[in-house]
Amino acid sequence: MPKHLVELQKHIHEWISLHREESTDFLRKLVSMPSTQGNEQRAQFLIADKLLELALEVELWEPDGEALASHPYFCSPRNHFTGSPNVVGVWKGVGGGRSLLLNGHMDVVPEGNRAQWHDDPWSGQVVDGKLYGRGATDMKGGNVSLLIAIEAVQSLGIQLKGDVIFESVIEEESGGAGTLAAIVKGYKADAALIPEPTNMRIFPKQQGSMWFRIEVKGRSAHGGTRYEGVSAIEKSIAVIEHIRALEVERNARITDPLYANNPIPIPINIGVIQGGNWPSSVSDTVKLEGRMGVAPEETLDGAKEEMLRWIARLSEKDPWFKAHPPSVEWFGAQWVPGSVDPEHAFMQVLMQQFRAVKQVEPVIEASPWGTDGGLLTQVGDTPCIVFGPGITQVAHYPNEYIEMEHVFESAEIIALTIIQWCGLDEAEA
Amino acid sequence: MPKHLVELQKHIHEWISLHREESTDFLRKLVSMPSTQGNEQRAQFLIADKLLELALEVELWEPDGEALASHPYFCSPRNHFTGSPNVVGVWKGVGGGRSLLLNGHMDVVPEGNRAQWHDDPWSGQVVDGKLYGRGATDMKGGNVSLLIAIEAVQSLGIQLKGDVIFESVIEEESGGAGTLAAIVKGYKADAALIPEPTNMRIFPKQQGSMWFRIEVKGRSAHGGTRYEGVSAIEKSIAVIEHIRALEVERNARITDPLYANNPIPIPINIGVIQGGNWPSSVSDTVKLEGRMGVAPEETLDGAKEEMLRWIARLSEKDPWFKAHPPSVEWFGAQWVPGSVDPEHAFMQVLMQQFRAVKQVEPVIEASPWGTDGGLLTQVGDTPCIVFGPGITQVAHYPNEYIEMEHVFESAEIIALTIIQWCGLDEAEA
Repeated sequence: MPKHLVELQKHIHEWISLHREESTDFLRKLVSMPSTQGNEQRAQFLIADKLLELALEVELWEPDGEALASHPYFCSPRNHFTGSPNVVGVWKGVGGGRSLLLNGHMDVVPEGNRAQWHDDPWSGQVVDGKLYGRGATDMKGGNVSLLIAIEAVQSLGIQLKGDVIFESVIEEESGGAGTLAAIVKGYKADAALIPEPTNMRIFPKQQGSMWFRIEVKGRSAHGGTRYEGVSAIEKSIAVIEHIRALEVERNARITDPLYANNPIPIPINIGVIQGGNWPSSVSDTVKLEGRMGVAPEETLDGAKEEMLRWIARLSEKDPWFKAHPPSVEWFGAQWVPGSVDPEHAFMQVLMQQFRAVKQVEPVIEASPWGTDGGLLTQVGDTPCIVFGPGITQVAHYPNEYIEMEHVFESAEIIALTIIQWCGLDEAEA
Repeated sequence: MPKHLVELQKHIHEWISLHREESTDFLRKLVSMPSTQGNEQRAQFLIADKLLELALEVELWEPDGEALASHPYFCSPRNHFTGSPNVVGVWKGVGGGRSLLLNGHMDVVPEGNRAQWHDDPWSGQVVDGKLYGRGATDMKGGNVSLLIAIEAVQSLGIQLKGDVIFESVIEEESGGAGTLAAIVKGYKADAALIPEPTNMRIFPKQQGSMWFRIEVKGRSAHGGTRYEGVSAIEKSIAVIEHIRALEVERNARITDPLYANNPIPIPINIGVIQGGNWPSSVSDTVKLEGRMGVAPEETLDGAKEEMLRWIARLSEKDPWFKAHPPSVEWFGAQWVPGSVDPEHAFMQVLMQQFRAVKQVEPVIEASPWGTDGGLLTQVGDTPCIVFGPGITQVAHYPNEYIEMEHVFESAEIIALTIIQWCGLDEAEA
């Protein structure tokens, strides 16, 4: 690392250290705003305000749901976004450098059962270095690390060559319509980073996923003469076991070393089962709902076709399914998978900064879940890597929290990455 | 058959033939009154009126739910019966004969999905000799066959030695609180007949049943890392298969020739499955609800204990169940099983009259479902046989109907049975 970079790093480290309290306060304020789906406005105004303070060019807009709805990658339970703005801030470079898109989502999942929280889910309280509250780790902590990074770089009094584009988007939790809206508006860059909670591992590849609903048919009868009917519950067991076999087959194909530590790289989870409506009747319908993992290099359509072909093969096992084929429907959320070559230049830059700050080798893996990164990479022409503070084990759960120390470390790595990737305007350096 | 009995039969047959239209009208009127749970009053008033017309001693009362609730065989989703009266009519004999209790329930199950009915579910319309409507076969048709039988016997201008007790009860569909209330009031007899839809087969034994609810536990996780959780849906498959093995074991013990034609004499039906609430989460709970058949000679408590012991053995198959034993709960309805010796004198009398009217041997079987007969036999000290017109295949289904011809034939057999069992007062004969 050249000498002046060592000095820059030192300066950045000190600036972040000096502003810990201020940054923590900002995250606490952000967590205290319950930005669940449809309620993102207050938090987004706070972000826009911050971006203006940082002198970025700010755009805040409510995505046009009707226009978006015709996009092949649109996926949302709603088609109007009144009161749910996206915010983008652009820090223009002087030119001649590589641009970087920093993306984080502002929507959080609902707090769930309040009785399971030790404290108010929107408290943002800090105990033993952990900031608690819904969205702390998924992913307001990551978003704040981006803002700290930008402000720390600005504090150097330098100019970058490439643009830095900061996006605070809605709808990640329900299929990425916010990021899609930003793509459609034309925002793109030479690389992107999303600080989802990877526990500071680096994910150049991400599993995609989509939801399915399978309806299994039976024939009703009285429970006392159940042999006169055909139990949809028993038939659904055959369907579940058949899907389990598909999961085995699909995962046997995954040889990517990035999945070496993952027992089931692309799981098929059946999360909901519902059938029958009377204890003493033979059930004539069972509904299964689940999530199909999609490999980084796969397309959603390819995975859908494989599932349909597989389900059709049930009739080879049991003639009942020939006469009564289970229906398969894709519904609800989907996340496009994403894959960036681990040798990509941006990977190298990010890994170098990680080493510089942490003094250890980064862990490189493929993520077991989707993010908006798939959309950026596959649809937005912007190769995206996921790296951020926080752990997924607490995301979506009661007593969600984030280690503030990791927010600051991530911010430092990201600040250095911004400089290295976008390039210093040497005239000033 | 002595000559005067042949004449009595001829007279009864003619009386029933002559009153076909009147009897059909009465059944139509009864079916047109939607006597679902809580709405039995109008139909019961019609019955009470009919019984008064037949000069029976009539008692009509709303069972005292609070008093009944402490009875060990009480089973009902409600504990007050305002607007839901029982009706009993007694035709006193001159003495010296055997008494007979004729029991039928007036409550009907709801009509279900109206779109699946070709006509109004409460029309009572007759097409090609079939009277359509909810409750036609289960069991207003049977009830009317009892009333026809009584009126036909009365038309002979004779006196019986034994009492005839006619009961029109509520709550059969939800566990027998109506019949239990009549038992508690003291109504009993030397034998009983319930004309549930047996398709004119004779059932001296009846399967009992009760409802259970099993909760199977898992451990939640994100679907993308489903291997970090334990799927309650997968564990529930093990529970279902374990219960299937219990069904095999229990049915292997049934050697009663009355069950010879029944592939599963005492089935365990799992009618409802419900688990998980999010497609991309590993489900942490699955609820199973079902109906456990209970053999005629078994007690409900004995069957319950066997189920509990069996479920406890799941931990031998999978240590997960040792740490997280599925809970078993008994809820909703139950029907006490019943068993009368096929050699019982009342069986012989009923079979003789069947042969006399139908000129074929009756089919003797054990019923695959419970009726109020179990309560009469086990609790009410009144050995009860089930025999009646109508087929169970249409009970509880859209477009329920009954063949009027079978109502009249049953009435004829029952009329002769009344005479033979209760005995003619020879002073008049």
